[in-house]
Amino acid sequence: MPHAVVSRPPEIGARIGLAHGNGGRFMRELIDGLFRRHLANPLLDTTVDAAALPLAAGDGTLMVTTDGFTVEPLEFPGGDIGSLAVHGTVNDLAVAGATPLHLTVACFIEEGLDVDLLDRLIASMATAAEDAGVGVVAGDTKVVRRGEGGGIYFATTGIGVRDPGLRLGIDTVRAGDRLLVSGPVGDHGTAVMLAREQFGLRGDLVSDAASVLPVTRALAPLPGLRFMRDPTRGGLATVAHEIARLSGLAVRLDAAAIPVRDPVAAVCEMLGYDPLYLACEGRVVTVVAPEDAEAALAAVRSAQGGAEAAIIGGLRPGPAEVVLETDLGGERLIEELEDDPLPRIC
Amino acid sequence: MPHAVVSRPPEIGARIGLAHGNGGRFMRELIDGLFRRHLANPLLDTTVDAAALPLAAGDGTLMVTTDGFTVEPLEFPGGDIGSLAVHGTVNDLAVAGATPLHLTVACFIEEGLDVDLLDRLIASMATAAEDAGVGVVAGDTKVVRRGEGGGIYFATTGIGVRDPGLRLGIDTVRAGDRLLVSGPVGDHGTAVMLAREQFGLRGDLVSDAASVLPVTRALAPLPGLRFMRDPTRGGLATVAHEIARLSGLAVRLDAAAIPVRDPVAAVCEMLGYDPLYLACEGRVVTVVAPEDAEAALAAVRSAQGGAEAAIIGGLRPGPAEVVLETDLGGERLIEELEDDPLPRIC
Repeated sequence: MPHAVVSRPPEIGARIGLAHGNGGRFMRELIDGLFRRHLANPLLDTTVDAAALPLAAGDGTLMVTTDGFTVEPLEFPGGDIGSLAVHGTVNDLAVAGATPLHLTVACFIEEGLDVDLLDRLIASMATAAEDAGVGVVAGDTKVVRRGEGGGIYFATTGIGVRDPGLRLGIDTVRAGDRLLVSGPVGDHGTAVMLAREQFGLRGDLVSDAASVLPVTRALAPLPGLRFMRDPTRGGLATVAHEIARLSGLAVRLDAAAIPVRDPVAAVCEMLGYDPLYLACEGRVVTVVAPEDAEAALAAVRSAQGGAEAAIIGGLRPGPAEVVLETDLGGERLIEELEDDPLPRIC
Repeated sequence: MPHAVVSRPPEIGARIGLAHGNGGRFMRELIDGLFRRHLANPLLDTTVDAAALPLAAGDGTLMVTTDGFTVEPLEFPGGDIGSLAVHGTVNDLAVAGATPLHLTVACFIEEGLDVDLLDRLIASMATAAEDAGVGVVAGDTKVVRRGEGGGIYFATTGIGVRDPGLRLGIDTVRAGDRLLVSGPVGDHGTAVMLAREQFGLRGDLVSDAASVLPVTRALAPLPGLRFMRDPTRGGLATVAHEIARLSGLAVRLDAAAIPVRDPVAAVCEMLGYDPLYLACEGRVVTVVAPEDAEAALAAVRSAQGGAEAAIIGGLRPGPAEVVLETDLGGERLIEELEDDPLPRIC
């Protein structure tokens, strides 16, 4: 992955050492010379214990979410763990109907991590944050000994605000509602899998990792919008199961309607995976009232990242199960995920 | 460490497997059967992407902080990584003058972690949260492969509110101000060190890890209160350096006045550590105007955890340096920490 060469204070060294996590001079230089340089914004003050947020009455309902990121490899086609740590948390706020405003970042760095790699990851994090309109307001770095980490893990927490009038949630879902996905499924899981040398495969596929804010903003004005979720770990099948379990309704999926890219289908065929269970990091699954389904589809298709959106099924009265209607008119039950197909996928 | 035997759904198994992090059934059972059981509160809904926080206008300035926790061993005399992950973040809000309200928790669990141990850690987290008056409102769990973690790491983010009228910060610090510490230094660092088998030492010392809210609340009403910080990684010496660097003033410490427990002094003597650099997890270093110094000391001493507080020095016009006045009338410069004495101390 090409990247701009950036300067850094030579004191930091070429590799992260334990002293970069001890609270002393090297840690301060790492934070000032690398993190603060990339993530600078008016609310980020690395000298305070807690950041004051300028949220005012009338801004809306305060929303918060947190997520950990462990993806391996740390850089993959279409993204890296830095941008993913922003997108993942921004997206959890977005599908809750919120406008993300602030992020906090905790880093767990393994001794020996290449400082240039860390620099690229934090630069990528900064770009993703800027694109999503959020600022990093607080952070923490810990360094663990060689062999006690996986290069780097991030935990990000997102704070946003939601219009108090927005009616959105699983309790609004009804039999007859339609199910929409904002783009092809399984790109992220497959791209990360291909980037792992263990599989010995190569391909041009890139992760779908991205902010879904353009999609959720396009959907927000629709009165028939019921529920949104991003199908990350466990993929579309897992979101379908959550909808079924929480609503008590049957989720029917139309196999022919679910967008899956050819290389994703090919890799899954070869390795025995089902794309319905593979992680996406830039898609939204939406439940929408039937009368607004076409409007929702049009809205998403006109939004950035939503050009390949499709209506992929709907909800019927229970039992709470997920049924895939196959091309040949058959049906098969989609089981809840049990075995782990891919650790460290996000 | 004794603990109550708690029941858990047998499906979870005796050890954490990769499937506990895959988004599917096992992860759901782990979250519902262990995390939600201990951390239950009216705002915690494990089925949503983001939690709505009932903060109203007039509650004060919104404050946020985040921290990662990697302490080893995971359980140590006086605490564990679960309670520490609450105390550490609560304390960062407390020393910023805020009342902590909400916590988020991200967990990085290593494959193979004993489920009973995890259960104890989350129960301990719940107790610490309840004691500090905070509730966990959002969480995330990731499972990494055996050898890619250190048992478990936590990242907690704390949200609180601060009285907008509170004037507190390094910019209020003046030459002539006094420095106060709320109790003996180095207990946490020493207790954790002794708990590591590698040192072959045993002792009765317990960590000072605790919420410092009683201390910061006792100090808050004093008009002469300037600045508070908890001396965690890098210890008292590192906080003294931060005060010197950020204020441009000289920090003078009176060696005879700094409280250090005998076993801490003995272990440091034996292993070549300086207690001034060892982590505390339940102490507050406070800068206070000279006219309020005695009142501050009395206030802290009457607060829970502050009985052994002491005035340990003061600020003079620059240069920005930290000077230790020794018992024999001598002086020595306290250097900023460079080498790492103790990785995974918090």
